[in-house]
Amino acid sequence: MTGMTGTSWQERYSASTIYTLRCKILDKPGMFAKLSDGVSQVGGNLGEISLVDVEGEYKIRDIGVYLAEKEDLDKLLGIIKKIDEIEVISARNEVFETHRRGSIDVVSRMEIKSLTDLRLVYTPGVASVCKEIENDAAAAWEWTGICDRVAIVTNGTAVLGLGDIGTLASLPVMEGKASIFAEFANISAFPMLIDTKDVDKFVETVVLTAKCFGAIQLEDVAAPACFEIEEKLIEKLDIPVFHDDQHGTATVVLAALINALKQTGKKKEDCSVIMLGGGSAGIAISKMLLEFGIGDIVVYDSVGAIYRGREEKMNPYKKQIAEITNKKNEKGNVTEGFAGKEIFIGVSQPNIVSKDMVASMAKDPIVLPLSNPIGEISKEEAIEAGAAITADGRDINNALAYPGIFRGALDAKATEINLEMKIAAAERIAELAAEGMLLPDMLDREVHRKVAEAVAQTWLKQKSK
Amino acid sequence: MTGMTGTSWQERYSASTIYTLRCKILDKPGMFAKLSDGVSQVGGNLGEISLVDVEGEYKIRDIGVYLAEKEDLDKLLGIIKKIDEIEVISARNEVFETHRRGSIDVVSRMEIKSLTDLRLVYTPGVASVCKEIENDAAAAWEWTGICDRVAIVTNGTAVLGLGDIGTLASLPVMEGKASIFAEFANISAFPMLIDTKDVDKFVETVVLTAKCFGAIQLEDVAAPACFEIEEKLIEKLDIPVFHDDQHGTATVVLAALINALKQTGKKKEDCSVIMLGGGSAGIAISKMLLEFGIGDIVVYDSVGAIYRGREEKMNPYKKQIAEITNKKNEKGNVTEGFAGKEIFIGVSQPNIVSKDMVASMAKDPIVLPLSNPIGEISKEEAIEAGAAITADGRDINNALAYPGIFRGALDAKATEINLEMKIAAAERIAELAAEGMLLPDMLDREVHRKVAEAVAQTWLKQKSK
Repeated sequence: MTGMTGTSWQERYSASTIYTLRCKILDKPGMFAKLSDGVSQVGGNLGEISLVDVEGEYKIRDIGVYLAEKEDLDKLLGIIKKIDEIEVISARNEVFETHRRGSIDVVSRMEIKSLTDLRLVYTPGVASVCKEIENDAAAAWEWTGICDRVAIVTNGTAVLGLGDIGTLASLPVMEGKASIFAEFANISAFPMLIDTKDVDKFVETVVLTAKCFGAIQLEDVAAPACFEIEEKLIEKLDIPVFHDDQHGTATVVLAALINALKQTGKKKEDCSVIMLGGGSAGIAISKMLLEFGIGDIVVYDSVGAIYRGREEKMNPYKKQIAEITNKKNEKGNVTEGFAGKEIFIGVSQPNIVSKDMVASMAKDPIVLPLSNPIGEISKEEAIEAGAAITADGRDINNALAYPGIFRGALDAKATEINLEMKIAAAERIAELAAEGMLLPDMLDREVHRKVAEAVAQTWLKQKSK
Repeated sequence: MTGMTGTSWQERYSASTIYTLRCKILDKPGMFAKLSDGVSQVGGNLGEISLVDVEGEYKIRDIGVYLAEKEDLDKLLGIIKKIDEIEVISARNEVFETHRRGSIDVVSRMEIKSLTDLRLVYTPGVASVCKEIENDAAAAWEWTGICDRVAIVTNGTAVLGLGDIGTLASLPVMEGKASIFAEFANISAFPMLIDTKDVDKFVETVVLTAKCFGAIQLEDVAAPACFEIEEKLIEKLDIPVFHDDQHGTATVVLAALINALKQTGKKKEDCSVIMLGGGSAGIAISKMLLEFGIGDIVVYDSVGAIYRGREEKMNPYKKQIAEITNKKNEKGNVTEGFAGKEIFIGVSQPNIVSKDMVASMAKDPIVLPLSNPIGEISKEEAIEAGAAITADGRDINNALAYPGIFRGALDAKATEINLEMKIAAAERIAELAAEGMLLPDMLDREVHRKVAEAVAQTWLKQKSK
């Protein structure tokens, strides 16, 4: 039993670049086979194929190819060059085309075609709307875009798998995230690049610019600064502040785990978790799983188990985790840590877990090697070592959680996104998965609508108490 | 000869609210006359009328009414109540409906319908775009939305005619401005509410958040803070910073003046200007007119003429103006100041200029009472007092200038918007006016395209020197 391994879209999904090759191909049998063979040789996949034009006995076709790396393109072009019947006319990088001039736009909700339109949207009409808000700040929720607007706030210090690439270089990620917000949840998200690594300056800048937003998504800020920033922003602002790398990840992990427990017949309170990674995701997942009612968790970082009394490489956040996890106060190394645990969750580094470690776990373990883009152990090896269920970082995608969570928080006019709301989101996501699957399809807009509903209802229930 | 007085759309334009009344009207002759009469009694105008439904001998119609103030609606409803054949079913405030949930949206440029789409716009594809920018910051201009993105930055201290209404209450204006940017120039403008009156904090916050913008529009910040903020931002940022209340206004005033001079046969170098108002607009207009080559200007503020050696109520910006204007170092009061001047420009307060003052000017004077929403003198009185040409704040609309100016600066990748670029914009705007008019129609998209072209060409010419 394999949860979600090895389907062809997932192989493609792991490809990080897509090119469209415009090819002039002699119109005789066997040409696609030659092309496909060439693409396989560089470890890629053929994608969409379309007919562009016909030139005598040649056809001009656009051929989509999925490649792991940019460098594979040159290899592929070299291989095709040796095929007499096929000539590559041009190669277009689809990823870059997608990001040309950015992936988002700010548009006017109304067309401005007459002076009446101008008067409504701007002066003199707008003055009465301003006065209304001057008299009653709460009216801004109704008469401005705050109710749909989220700031995606970053300083670019921990971007995807790329690390500290700087504020500006993180912008395509933030724009991409804004595209997802718009498409999945009708949220107007805007990238806010905060160009400082100083925690207090970062916090002050966000506070001084927060007035036109209904919620703040903290994104790709390195630990431990991210914890301090999050805490301070939550204290200073009266709108939700949500660090996606912590809580978005934790929500989707919990959703997958709920279904994995069901499918393996395990009880949450009987399960012990070995968590590899003491960064933002590891700590956030641990807290959520404890709140959910998991039996125990032991978190391991580069030093080893995090336990009460440990001195080496601790910080206030790890100290706090030491207090609430590791019931038996295990102090061993990682290899010992795997023995007998029901669940493994990895948010650390590629290829640091062996098949032996997985084999030492309890019967039918749940193995989630989430390190991106390459897991702590491959899903294939995990299965070979006895995992009953496995899913990696490509399966556990934050985009399943944050659009609906923010939509729900905005819809309910929530002033925070608390643990209970996140657990409600996780439970709803889990419910929406098809039979035998861990998670639903994130392209299904209905999923995000239902997550929003769950989050909003949870907040409104809390408020009515 | 009257420039632009008294057409019916301008009367309507002065109305600051529009309501749609849904009315049940007995289907017999004379009903519209009764309605129209009622609307006239409260000083309003009838707008669009449409048929909604038919109920027996009644018709249900939506009636647009243009009113000067919100309070006039109650009066109008009282009047209609007395008409037996007409019943008002509902009254909808169109201004508020326009601003419900805000006037702008952030949208994705691409639809996200497949996992391939997600991979292109977000992870893993986006990583290669980030790396490109990490290696070469200039690439962000091509692979992100910076090239189309403008921050509309304010602290709400001098909003329209409303004054210091606070940061939040200014948001509908900033959103309206963003709508205009989007509609007229395909610019993604985003409101940045900077919640501080401290100049240095304001500047630092803008600097720390400027990385994702291609230009900064400073908006509705009170003088003299606005000058200091503008100077400091220009010094610290390598993208254009443009205070619209100064330079947008100045550009359109100059454009109108170019045509007014032509139509009255005056030579710019022979003209003396009396400028009422020593705030941001007055100072900016003065500087631009001098650069353009106007003969002389005397600026008056609440104290009187600004002259070299004056001590009372001066600031560094007025001192600078004293150095470059007022050749004869006039020290008199406003009434004396009008005598013999060819041009009056008012950016001060309603109704402070008398017909006698205008009558004391040189022959066929150009009179621009631009105070908003009510001018220093009405256009009708100015004409009666002998003005050859007059235009007020409703005629001189910044929206003619800033969309094209920013579009041009972005297109040319300009690092500033300098005086020469603004004058080029003014000259192009002037050229585009129809024969006998002062200004072209701002709803004509071609106007903004041509202004952009003039601004971009001017920058590129400067760079190639």
